[in-house]
Amino acid sequence: MKIGVIGAGQLARMMIPPAVELGLQLRVLAEGAGMSAQLAATATGNYRDIETVLRFAETVDIITFDHEHVPQEVLQRLIAEGVTVAPGPQALQFAQNKLRMRERLGECGLPMPKWAHVTDLTEVESFLANNNGRAVLKTPFGGYDGKGVLVIESAEEARAWLEGEQYRESGLLIEEAVGFRRELAQLLARSRTGEIRCWPLVETVQRRGVCASVLAPAPGATAYQAERAREIACKIAEDLDVVGVLAIELFERSASEGVEGELLVNELAMRPHNSGHFTIEGSLTSQFEQHLRAVAGLPLGATEMREKAAVMVNVLGGGSTPMHKRYRQILGSFPSVKVHNYGKEPRPGRKIGHVTAVGTDIETVRDLAEQCARAFHTEALNTPHN
Amino acid sequence: MKIGVIGAGQLARMMIPPAVELGLQLRVLAEGAGMSAQLAATATGNYRDIETVLRFAETVDIITFDHEHVPQEVLQRLIAEGVTVAPGPQALQFAQNKLRMRERLGECGLPMPKWAHVTDLTEVESFLANNNGRAVLKTPFGGYDGKGVLVIESAEEARAWLEGEQYRESGLLIEEAVGFRRELAQLLARSRTGEIRCWPLVETVQRRGVCASVLAPAPGATAYQAERAREIACKIAEDLDVVGVLAIELFERSASEGVEGELLVNELAMRPHNSGHFTIEGSLTSQFEQHLRAVAGLPLGATEMREKAAVMVNVLGGGSTPMHKRYRQILGSFPSVKVHNYGKEPRPGRKIGHVTAVGTDIETVRDLAEQCARAFHTEALNTPHN
Repeated sequence: MKIGVIGAGQLARMMIPPAVELGLQLRVLAEGAGMSAQLAATATGNYRDIETVLRFAETVDIITFDHEHVPQEVLQRLIAEGVTVAPGPQALQFAQNKLRMRERLGECGLPMPKWAHVTDLTEVESFLANNNGRAVLKTPFGGYDGKGVLVIESAEEARAWLEGEQYRESGLLIEEAVGFRRELAQLLARSRTGEIRCWPLVETVQRRGVCASVLAPAPGATAYQAERAREIACKIAEDLDVVGVLAIELFERSASEGVEGELLVNELAMRPHNSGHFTIEGSLTSQFEQHLRAVAGLPLGATEMREKAAVMVNVLGGGSTPMHKRYRQILGSFPSVKVHNYGKEPRPGRKIGHVTAVGTDIETVRDLAEQCARAFHTEALNTPHN
Repeated sequence: MKIGVIGAGQLARMMIPPAVELGLQLRVLAEGAGMSAQLAATATGNYRDIETVLRFAETVDIITFDHEHVPQEVLQRLIAEGVTVAPGPQALQFAQNKLRMRERLGECGLPMPKWAHVTDLTEVESFLANNNGRAVLKTPFGGYDGKGVLVIESAEEARAWLEGEQYRESGLLIEEAVGFRRELAQLLARSRTGEIRCWPLVETVQRRGVCASVLAPAPGATAYQAERAREIACKIAEDLDVVGVLAIELFERSASEGVEGELLVNELAMRPHNSGHFTIEGSLTSQFEQHLRAVAGLPLGATEMREKAAVMVNVLGGGSTPMHKRYRQILGSFPSVKVHNYGKEPRPGRKIGHVTAVGTDIETVRDLAEQCARAFHTEALNTPHN
């Protein structure tokens, strides 16, 4: 079974270990040389170019993704040529376009923040007026890690995006600025056979729009919340016919607004996701192994936690020292923390790796993981970048 | 840090996942195409050829091994050229030659079966006479998985090896046929810095001279035995200046002979070892990650068990069906068992993979792992091969 991955970032890279373990052949279409998943790269080229992608598809049995940016026309052409694509374009469109996602989830009756499609300043003004003068403006596509998201309090702040070239045709998504206690995420995988396995509900801690850490399972989540999150995620997976890993980012509404603890769907991703990196050590089956099993149509692995708690903390690039040059100093102080290095050139704010600690007490585990990640960050704190 | 591995078998293959995770560059010198560690192969050639190995060494920062068969003259030449080799030739000679090993361990005062170096039938006869007419004859080099080992009851049985071309000069090793209750193994890693970390003492179950399964930790081992095994292994690691993973195979003497439960050194290996595959899921740090850390001179990782028990069972080739062709049938029945497939062509008796189960009760875990491995074997049992 040859599995082709379009994109050679850290998600493709982290598929390499389980592919090696299970003896599945992984082939990666990289955008260029020296990418994170270079080791498995068998082709280099632009994933927007139909011919490049078709040539790559001929070398594999199935196509899956490191990211959601492959254009629909390329995906549709693959399907027309008889290539198996997982997740398929019909599902992927909802991860590619947030307006379509909101529309579709609405049809499915799923809980979401109030939202509207806005194409001019008057519509923005009217949405603000109906929502206490505050809202979140989002570009329907092209956003990630806090980019393409803007909290606004006046229509004027929407002008640049609304009148800019990129979103003039599509318009923008505007959403209620939800008062939330915290952010959660529900991860699952759905196989081509329809089998679904969920991981436990987790808490994701964001800093400046970027995921900083993930606590698994989400501390203090009620059984009702855990059940509700699975229910929401399974409904999305089935109604949208998702194949592979699906990550649902959720808001937990705060007490002051509406129903305390209510879960609202914020975003979704149809691929292994930062909120699931803890599964490498924390779960019996990692999200990367499960994604490969799911897209290959193999039975899924067990998703129980291996220990009571797991905490993942991202390592962001600060100074110019790659992580491995600091191993001699740092690893000795954290013998039980697992270090993941994406082999990426450090740049301020760029995710260059993560660390995970597992154990019985989540607070102890969290301290350990945060201290270790901070040790890799220290240089950053001493430089003018931050 | 570029780590060069000579040999592309499953041990080199299993170094790929931790190398990817830690962002260490792994480069493998393969004997030919399509080897188990093909993915990391950057050179192909004969490891007995000095020029081939020297050329490969120029592309890496340090040389380590998938096996112990690189000739001393090749190793010595690497050292002469200033290449860092771990473990070094001075240590490796004791893993390469069982006569030297016995001699050296004797100098270190370590517990062993009675042994002698024999070069003719008279010496064999005399050893048999002094040992109740039964002994184990071993070739000093070239043996593995039961090959090069012969239980004899008459000198005549030694004639073919003694008078054959291969061992005429070296002579043979003859050992007391130890009455043992079971076989155990003690694994550790020693870093270039001298730091040592041991894994728990394990029981290894052999079938026809081949490791069938490994129970971790060794059921019913006493605290004294666990401590004694560590003491023996650490002394060997330090006295022989081993760098990397060291596996010590031990006999646990049965009650009928001498001291009950006494540990005797049977064999040793200076590389990741079959008795340590359980560490991938069973320990906080796998033997493959630890080997890379050790040879790179990095601080070592924690070696505590992640759960109370782990059992590894080898999958041997039987029929001609590769493991992955049976995943659809088998994986669904064993969602919590981790399957490792070495990507090797199945041949009767060849190790083509292994499975590991972890949990709290070792008997439950053992049943699970054995059932899963047996499912992969079933075909073999129905064919005339076995």
